[in-house]
Amino acid sequence: MSNATLTVNMAKYVYSFDEGNKEMKELLGGKGANLAQMTSIGLEVPPGFTVTTEACLKYLEKGELPGEIEEQMREKMKVLEKKLDKKFGDPDDPLLISVRSGAAVSMPGMMDTILNLGLNDETLQGLKKQTDERFAYDSYRRFLNMFGEVVREIPHAKFESLMNEVKEKEGVNKDVDLDAKAMKEVCRKYKELVGDVPHDPWKQLLEAVRAVFGSWNNKRAKKYREINNLPHDMGTAVNVQAMVFGNMGEDCGSGVAFTRNPATGEKDIYGEFLINAQGEDVVAGIRTPLHIDDLKEKMPEIYSQLNYVCKILEKEYNEMQDLEFTIEKGKLYILQTRDGKRTPMAAVKIAHDMAKEDLITKENAIMRITGEQIEKLLHKGIDPEADVEKITKGLNASPGAASGKVVFDTDEAAERGEKGESIILVRPETTPEDIHGLAAAKGVLTSRGGMTSHAAVVARGMGQPCVAGAEEISIYMEKGCFKVGNHTVMKDDILTIDGTTGNVILGEAPLTEPEFSLEFQELLMWSDEIRDMGVRANADTPKDAKKALEFGAEGIGLCRTEHMFFEPERLEVVHEMIIADDEYERKDVLERIIPLQRQDFFDLFKVMDGKPIVIRLLDPPLHEFAPTEEESQKKLAQRLDLSLDTIKKKVNKLKEANPMLGHRGCRLGIVYPEIYRMQVKAILEAAIDAAEEGVDIKPRIMVPLIGHVKELQTVKKKIIEPVKDEVFSRRGTEISFKVGTMIEIPRAAITADEIAKEAEFFSFGTNDLTQMTFGFSRDDVGSFVPSYLEMGILKDDPFHTLDSKGVGKLVEMATQKGKTSNPGLSIGICGEHGGEPNSVKFSYRAGVDYTSCSPFRIPIARIAAAQAKIEDNQDSS
Amino acid sequence: MSNATLTVNMAKYVYSFDEGNKEMKELLGGKGANLAQMTSIGLEVPPGFTVTTEACLKYLEKGELPGEIEEQMREKMKVLEKKLDKKFGDPDDPLLISVRSGAAVSMPGMMDTILNLGLNDETLQGLKKQTDERFAYDSYRRFLNMFGEVVREIPHAKFESLMNEVKEKEGVNKDVDLDAKAMKEVCRKYKELVGDVPHDPWKQLLEAVRAVFGSWNNKRAKKYREINNLPHDMGTAVNVQAMVFGNMGEDCGSGVAFTRNPATGEKDIYGEFLINAQGEDVVAGIRTPLHIDDLKEKMPEIYSQLNYVCKILEKEYNEMQDLEFTIEKGKLYILQTRDGKRTPMAAVKIAHDMAKEDLITKENAIMRITGEQIEKLLHKGIDPEADVEKITKGLNASPGAASGKVVFDTDEAAERGEKGESIILVRPETTPEDIHGLAAAKGVLTSRGGMTSHAAVVARGMGQPCVAGAEEISIYMEKGCFKVGNHTVMKDDILTIDGTTGNVILGEAPLTEPEFSLEFQELLMWSDEIRDMGVRANADTPKDAKKALEFGAEGIGLCRTEHMFFEPERLEVVHEMIIADDEYERKDVLERIIPLQRQDFFDLFKVMDGKPIVIRLLDPPLHEFAPTEEESQKKLAQRLDLSLDTIKKKVNKLKEANPMLGHRGCRLGIVYPEIYRMQVKAILEAAIDAAEEGVDIKPRIMVPLIGHVKELQTVKKKIIEPVKDEVFSRRGTEISFKVGTMIEIPRAAITADEIAKEAEFFSFGTNDLTQMTFGFSRDDVGSFVPSYLEMGILKDDPFHTLDSKGVGKLVEMATQKGKTSNPGLSIGICGEHGGEPNSVKFSYRAGVDYTSCSPFRIPIARIAAAQAKIEDNQDSS
Repeated sequence: MSNATLTVNMAKYVYSFDEGNKEMKELLGGKGANLAQMTSIGLEVPPGFTVTTEACLKYLEKGELPGEIEEQMREKMKVLEKKLDKKFGDPDDPLLISVRSGAAVSMPGMMDTILNLGLNDETLQGLKKQTDERFAYDSYRRFLNMFGEVVREIPHAKFESLMNEVKEKEGVNKDVDLDAKAMKEVCRKYKELVGDVPHDPWKQLLEAVRAVFGSWNNKRAKKYREINNLPHDMGTAVNVQAMVFGNMGEDCGSGVAFTRNPATGEKDIYGEFLINAQGEDVVAGIRTPLHIDDLKEKMPEIYSQLNYVCKILEKEYNEMQDLEFTIEKGKLYILQTRDGKRTPMAAVKIAHDMAKEDLITKENAIMRITGEQIEKLLHKGIDPEADVEKITKGLNASPGAASGKVVFDTDEAAERGEKGESIILVRPETTPEDIHGLAAAKGVLTSRGGMTSHAAVVARGMGQPCVAGAEEISIYMEKGCFKVGNHTVMKDDILTIDGTTGNVILGEAPLTEPEFSLEFQELLMWSDEIRDMGVRANADTPKDAKKALEFGAEGIGLCRTEHMFFEPERLEVVHEMIIADDEYERKDVLERIIPLQRQDFFDLFKVMDGKPIVIRLLDPPLHEFAPTEEESQKKLAQRLDLSLDTIKKKVNKLKEANPMLGHRGCRLGIVYPEIYRMQVKAILEAAIDAAEEGVDIKPRIMVPLIGHVKELQTVKKKIIEPVKDEVFSRRGTEISFKVGTMIEIPRAAITADEIAKEAEFFSFGTNDLTQMTFGFSRDDVGSFVPSYLEMGILKDDPFHTLDSKGVGKLVEMATQKGKTSNPGLSIGICGEHGGEPNSVKFSYRAGVDYTSCSPFRIPIARIAAAQAKIEDNQDSS
Repeated sequence: MSNATLTVNMAKYVYSFDEGNKEMKELLGGKGANLAQMTSIGLEVPPGFTVTTEACLKYLEKGELPGEIEEQMREKMKVLEKKLDKKFGDPDDPLLISVRSGAAVSMPGMMDTILNLGLNDETLQGLKKQTDERFAYDSYRRFLNMFGEVVREIPHAKFESLMNEVKEKEGVNKDVDLDAKAMKEVCRKYKELVGDVPHDPWKQLLEAVRAVFGSWNNKRAKKYREINNLPHDMGTAVNVQAMVFGNMGEDCGSGVAFTRNPATGEKDIYGEFLINAQGEDVVAGIRTPLHIDDLKEKMPEIYSQLNYVCKILEKEYNEMQDLEFTIEKGKLYILQTRDGKRTPMAAVKIAHDMAKEDLITKENAIMRITGEQIEKLLHKGIDPEADVEKITKGLNASPGAASGKVVFDTDEAAERGEKGESIILVRPETTPEDIHGLAAAKGVLTSRGGMTSHAAVVARGMGQPCVAGAEEISIYMEKGCFKVGNHTVMKDDILTIDGTTGNVILGEAPLTEPEFSLEFQELLMWSDEIRDMGVRANADTPKDAKKALEFGAEGIGLCRTEHMFFEPERLEVVHEMIIADDEYERKDVLERIIPLQRQDFFDLFKVMDGKPIVIRLLDPPLHEFAPTEEESQKKLAQRLDLSLDTIKKKVNKLKEANPMLGHRGCRLGIVYPEIYRMQVKAILEAAIDAAEEGVDIKPRIMVPLIGHVKELQTVKKKIIEPVKDEVFSRRGTEISFKVGTMIEIPRAAITADEIAKEAEFFSFGTNDLTQMTFGFSRDDVGSFVPSYLEMGILKDDPFHTLDSKGVGKLVEMATQKGKTSNPGLSIGICGEHGGEPNSVKFSYRAGVDYTSCSPFRIPIARIAAAQAKIEDNQDSS
């Protein structure tokens, strides 16, 4: 116990801004570390100090603020007072401070801020003396409001409604039009609402620190961390900083600036500001701010300084920065800097441009692109040819187009969106309370706020389309509609928004596929130069295959032949095959399918000229093809001249208790060899046909669901080899092809050394492998996996991200055993994990040679493969 | 090529009996090796030589008999001729030989024999001269018959019908009553039937050798090997031996003898013989032979010699021997010896007695008992109190009682028996062609043949009840009935046979459970002294638990609590629980189950006083308990005052696509924690109640279906710990208990190191583990696993014998990881593999501490555990 006390006594909980640097994010939070960094490189930062995340964790653990934290703050405050020649709580010329949270990872809008702390009825008089009466009361009401919200948890609406009472009484529309007397009245009302605001500034400060620390665990913060997969045990720091005022007159102002355009990535300083306003006036979106370009005209020197600061910060951080500034009486202060959130498009352009500018390496550039961003790059646009009814235009706050039903209530949007409905959330503005609705909607439309308003920032972060500040719109929440021009749009009406242009369109507009920017294409090329893992596509048709080639596929890693069975005109034949009584009858039916499958394969070979095509033999259980509806059963009965009852019985007989673990894959191929014989015949004949037309064919036959080496031996010996001999001798020619297997059953992974002796390639079917390794039926996990994710039993859905500890162990084992036993073995991964960056990286580390995914996700896989290689180089260097 | 030829030239394909010994079974076959051994220890064995199994494989490979084999045979023949002073093919005094197959493993009746080879129309004259005319023609017709059957594949029935023609003409009933002239006529007819029998004895011999070699691959032989799990690539040897004749007069005879009683194990020479007969007359069961005791009276010297030979052979082989002998003109020849087949009861007694007699060690005795034998020991008897209608009595040829429908046709018996019907096969006699019918029937009844007839031998080998030689029975195959006394028993009538007494009973007799012999109990005690693997029982009720204790269980390794839910009066409550709308409603219903479950556990604790009870929390998916029949749905609807439709919808909602991989086990416990809470509460309260009554309680709570360590953490933290705290504080007492988990999901095995940190014990649920590792649904494998077994893709059904290469690897991995991470971890195996000897042995080698199986199989597990230890000692010594 005494040891523990000793440690506590010795710990340093408070750091001046000049004591830290940008590497100390974990301890000082991102904001604190960056304030320290900016201070150290000589930028004009209002002085202050940071109470560490350790102090937060200590507070959360103990439930109270250890005494030494207050002691250390008092010491630092003395330094601050000396620096500014003001005293905290001085009734003549009080030092006012801001108290802000700041975790290691930026969590915009999640935590809480209190400005102008140090004001009370007494120090107010000093502030009045130093400035003017209106300013003093305006500052006081801001403090009371924030203290009330953050510390006393009084809803924002209550303050707003008191403010509105006064504005109404005074007959004015905007806060700025209220005079000193009116502001005094606002303060009176606020003090009444908040109740016991401590008079002692130190008590204010301690309460504020406690409240900020406590807010680490508020619902919004937790939700944000959950959505963003952040750990809950980091804690937040608190930054205490001398106030500077952007609202002391026309030579004052506040703004936010990005060092590059966060929507497009263009290398231009970008941002917004308000003259004579405090920072939160800009961010909150209450007044519509001016574009940063206007600053050039209004305050040319400040603009030039700001440009200079932006350059310095980019050099310092090698990243696009998002900074807050305040101009106090003609002097520029930087209040905060952080890596700027950006659209995926901007992320790509910035990474690319910075590499071109030699600020970072190509590898750095590639490492900065996430799979999620690439996915978002694939945002759709509105077909420019389409005849659409544009009803208004707002700010193009987050690119991409989306259609959906209009919903005004956030909870409703969240609920319906999570269920899979396409929802467009329409709000006057959004707040952190709306996060869940934003996350679940397809897009957001707001009638107020600028490019840096909450809705815009969050939507960009999520890569979701957002049109902000569409001011022509009037929203009538209670009536459940909005009006614009002579249109009235009711709840549940269909709306399309285009966050790339800002257009708002009535009804569902036809959307177009995205095109990749030149920068992205160059990044992909860099990735291709770096990576040594192959990227193939899962494609079943020539159309898919063409798409795959466009996206950069180096072959087809999985061609599912069953999809060829599902086409309506073929399904009839397949139905007959299923109902067939014996091998001979089935053979007869299969003869009719051969020409069709041969044509499929022939077309694929032509499209993929020179590239390998891995063709998986039939995998699903027969009953998946069986006619289940009475109508098609009747038709089949008629066609085959059988009774409906007979058909029903046959279909019923195919039903299984656990079809996932039933008669499918090679089990089907072994028991009904005529099916695989037909497929192998079609593949080989198509390959010969294509080769005869000069196509460079690389057929690969993949046997699914192997669990025992003898299954593969049997399929090879009893099916593939005899068919090969027959086709080659009949056609009088030979072609080369390979035979391999899926590794999708745990036993196959465990006995991969034996199986590798019979296989020329493996392909991990991680969907099935995950099902069997976890004992999870994908069709049934809905009843418990959501609870598991919520309770933290599972970190990720294992069907989305490869489970490295369990399923991944089998992948590693099979790769190692397979390659040891057959050094020439080629190993791939197909299935949905093949296009998920973490899974691709894991596979690469495990020794997998290529990944295969849907054409759409190939760019993700290409980048991820390059990242895997870069990480690997870093690890081994 | 020249090398290969060289090797062939150098190989020795033929061995004289004095060149080999009993260790050379693989090369000489069992029969050949034993003939050599007997020759070497000086027993009177007709001289001869053996053509090796290698020669057979060479023949099967090449399709022809390599020349050097004939050369070597001719050399050996010369030695034989010299020894006997006769010449092969000598028209004056021909050397006659027998040609017999003999594989490494005894395959009774499977391969083929030709006697009296060397006879032709010319040598016949010499034989006539040396013996008499009738004997010569009798010998000739036997040769013609066997040569025709074996070499020319002419059906036996054709010979029989020709024989019958002659008997009819002569007006006699038995073969022995035919005079020389009649036999000559038989020979004439046979020659006509067989056609081209080579005149040259060497041609006869070479054809015979080829036929025997070829018969290795005949259908019967293959079937036998499949049934007995024997490899197909061993080949058979051929034994060529000088003929001795048991049919040369009243001072001649043939017989078979066991050195101990093969039915009971009693240490008495046991067997049958016929005066003036050849060996196959005894074995074929055509004449009903005399008991060996009669030999004492008829040929006292021979009997005394035979007794002496039996002693010598037992000493030599340390095993009970089954020998064939022939008495030729007062001289005893031993034609063959082999380890005698025996009933399981006899196997146990003989192993036990031999250990007691110091012929073998206790370890040897234990190693000789197989799980299958023990299973068969558990044969039922007919309740002696029962009022049954005995219709006749036959020989008690193979013990145990069985009831079933009478079937006369072997194929029909096979087909219906395999489908699961209880069949009693009724035949005049059986032949090797009837094997499949015997295997599928519950028991066999024959009207002819003795204790060593085909039916009797095979039934004993299979451990199946057999009543043989029930001569009062007349079978009318064509009418599909048999008559005995004034009873007519039709096909499909129910019959009970008692192979222990020989009784045949009309209708289904009430059967009694078996009792263990004192010898078996002593063997079990020896096993307990040797083994260090624990043996527990899978038992759900006090009744099961008592049975388990009787069989020697050291605890309960698996108590399935769901079985407690299935009792009719409880199922109603369970139905209500399933239909409950929310946790509160469910809790309410569960409160009503608690007293019932508590009582269950309390009773179990009392029965198992001092022994651990591993209680598994609820495992199956809820829908297994749901009322599926409309009747019970209606009842439930009435009870709950809900519409039938509501009930149906709720029941429907519980259905899953793959319930095996669905919402069950701990997944259920985590999502509906109130169920596990109820169970834990019931267990702990029952334990406290029992402890308060002075019972020594050892509760173990087992969480099923863990796949991720966090699942176990969650169940412990959110369910077990709070309930424990509540119960202990309410009851004001504490008891100690352990918490562990099933390892039944591949992922659990793979991450066993993590899970072991949270578990005090593991228990392998190898049923589920096999399902998921193979991707086999036990309910659905019927559509392909039988084909897999037939095609040899699988050697064993993995649900019967633990798959050591796949599932076994996970067992090894989990054991190793688990014990490394938690050295105090106790590891068991439960499920059906827990009572299968090979699986028990595998588990022991893997490091598993105890096995748990159904009470009935506990003796098997005790023996297997001892065998595992003995094998382990052998390996490490």
